[in-house]
Amino acid sequence: MTLDCPLPYGEHELIQLGHGAGGRLTAELLDSLVLPALGGQPDGPLEDAALLPGADELVVSTDSFVVSPLSFPGGDIGSLAVHGTVNDLAMRGALPLALTLAVIAEEGLPLAELRAVLDSAGKAAYETGVPFVTGDTKVVGRGAADRLFLNTTGIGRRITGLTPSAAKARPGDAVLLSGPIGLHGTAVLSTREGLGFETDIASDTRPLHRLVQALAPLGGGIHSLRDPTRGGLAAALNEIARDSGVGVRIEERAVPVPAAVAAACDLLGLDPLVVANEGCLVAFVTADTADEALTALRAHPEGAEAVRIGHCAAAPAGRVELRTLIGARRVVDMPLGEQLPRIC
Amino acid sequence: MTLDCPLPYGEHELIQLGHGAGGRLTAELLDSLVLPALGGQPDGPLEDAALLPGADELVVSTDSFVVSPLSFPGGDIGSLAVHGTVNDLAMRGALPLALTLAVIAEEGLPLAELRAVLDSAGKAAYETGVPFVTGDTKVVGRGAADRLFLNTTGIGRRITGLTPSAAKARPGDAVLLSGPIGLHGTAVLSTREGLGFETDIASDTRPLHRLVQALAPLGGGIHSLRDPTRGGLAAALNEIARDSGVGVRIEERAVPVPAAVAAACDLLGLDPLVVANEGCLVAFVTADTADEALTALRAHPEGAEAVRIGHCAAAPAGRVELRTLIGARRVVDMPLGEQLPRIC
Repeated sequence: MTLDCPLPYGEHELIQLGHGAGGRLTAELLDSLVLPALGGQPDGPLEDAALLPGADELVVSTDSFVVSPLSFPGGDIGSLAVHGTVNDLAMRGALPLALTLAVIAEEGLPLAELRAVLDSAGKAAYETGVPFVTGDTKVVGRGAADRLFLNTTGIGRRITGLTPSAAKARPGDAVLLSGPIGLHGTAVLSTREGLGFETDIASDTRPLHRLVQALAPLGGGIHSLRDPTRGGLAAALNEIARDSGVGVRIEERAVPVPAAVAAACDLLGLDPLVVANEGCLVAFVTADTADEALTALRAHPEGAEAVRIGHCAAAPAGRVELRTLIGARRVVDMPLGEQLPRIC
Repeated sequence: MTLDCPLPYGEHELIQLGHGAGGRLTAELLDSLVLPALGGQPDGPLEDAALLPGADELVVSTDSFVVSPLSFPGGDIGSLAVHGTVNDLAMRGALPLALTLAVIAEEGLPLAELRAVLDSAGKAAYETGVPFVTGDTKVVGRGAADRLFLNTTGIGRRITGLTPSAAKARPGDAVLLSGPIGLHGTAVLSTREGLGFETDIASDTRPLHRLVQALAPLGGGIHSLRDPTRGGLAAALNEIARDSGVGVRIEERAVPVPAAVAAACDLLGLDPLVVANEGCLVAFVTADTADEALTALRAHPEGAEAVRIGHCAAAPAGRVELRTLIGARRVVDMPLGEQLPRIC
């Protein structure tokens, strides 16, 4: 008699929307299935971008974009694809050198829409100062894809002296946030569902590499950087807490949530902490560099509203806690799965 | 009164399957819409992979894979995604350093199928000696994608002294082909349509970097390399003829077409010259290195059947001509559009 190995997934289990949501289900899928299959290291730090073997100062990041609708207040899938990848590189302390763009289009997509999206991607890349160096175009039959998916891969070079990692946060670190949260997710959702908030809310999609460049003079004082995209601030803080083995303590009153975002979240039953952002970052920095870091961030329009939202403690390791407006403490869990499908 | 600018596409034109087929429609889409939008250079040489600015010896290539079905004799979308990108790097004279993998899965895809495909990708990468360094997973709702799409981006380093380009073929060059043609396209099509040929035909999907490494000692004698994927040998030869401004002359009797491929093409009304391959390359080399190059290719299993199929002439520039079995000449056109959708 043999004992069956405990399989992480049943033989007949199916992929769910939550597996792509950037929360706990995504982490489980990565650890149990994707990383073992591809020869990666389960349970290692999950970074936004990887160092390129044999070319130490270069980092690489890839992202597919499936946002629906293709356009929303503040941006579209084209600009989002550029910003998302530029920002993943930036979170590893790198400035972008080059981008690739791969298109999967559904037969029947109006060429005018494809043109608009690619124009937007080209404009975003130009404004960021990074060229598209190569690409790919695939077309699938009607019904085999929903209009248009993009993939961008970015290659960047690390700024000398800047080596942030999700595993480098330390007790005592200050936790900074470069701008208000919840704009991207609520803008896309409101547009898609026709909720009417889209007149008050625009996505924050924008490149963050200049903010990272502004932090570079602080060098080793910058421990961890993360842009809170899928899974929102809750996922970003939980990832750093887990990978660094620290406790993260956040003050609710310090977290900037625009009034229109709060109203939209109230209506939809969403927690702004789990809503996706595309134009802000969290920085874990040593306590003695926190003021300088805030000043550096605030010197740029995209960091003008930078604030300190909390600090790191030694315990409880791996846990994120929020002190609420009335002074109570609550645990901020890693979001389980999908609250907002196809948000990026 | 103003004169309307001639637009390359009408306002209401829609994307067609042929726009993704690697033929003339793809080239038109790139030149008229994609490259202008992204800030690229229309009518420049279209290479399989691009040099990375600021890191001269590095090249990068990206490809999305939408093949249907996901598995076919000889391979699956996982191994295909690895080989396709490794080969695009190799055609620029580069050995792969790292791969990225981005997954777009349809809700409801069995996790066992995802695992099988990723295992296959991991195995192909391991056998090629290249690591996956980062990735991305997106899930879209049922009906918003057809099961599974993959994107692989590869970064490679050029072998010193090897600088092949689609623009470097010269009159007098020998045209070499590393193996038989037509296997991949007919294997996928036969599986998809249940034609029965799939018992006799398996895809040739495999990595070609070792063949390129074998050619490296011939250095500057290696002018152009191309793997004839979408659009087949006809597209690959036409691209080199166009980008190098040379005439290409091919002997039909020298082009190896397996009997089962010929039979499948007869039945389907396909020209084997336009059927996709995933495991052979064409090399344009100086006449005096041709014999040495053939010997080098034949020393590897994947090049055991390498042959000389023709030569380059000064005129007619940009045209590919085939001398048929009965001695007649016919022009081999760039394929217009899609004969075999979703072949890779």
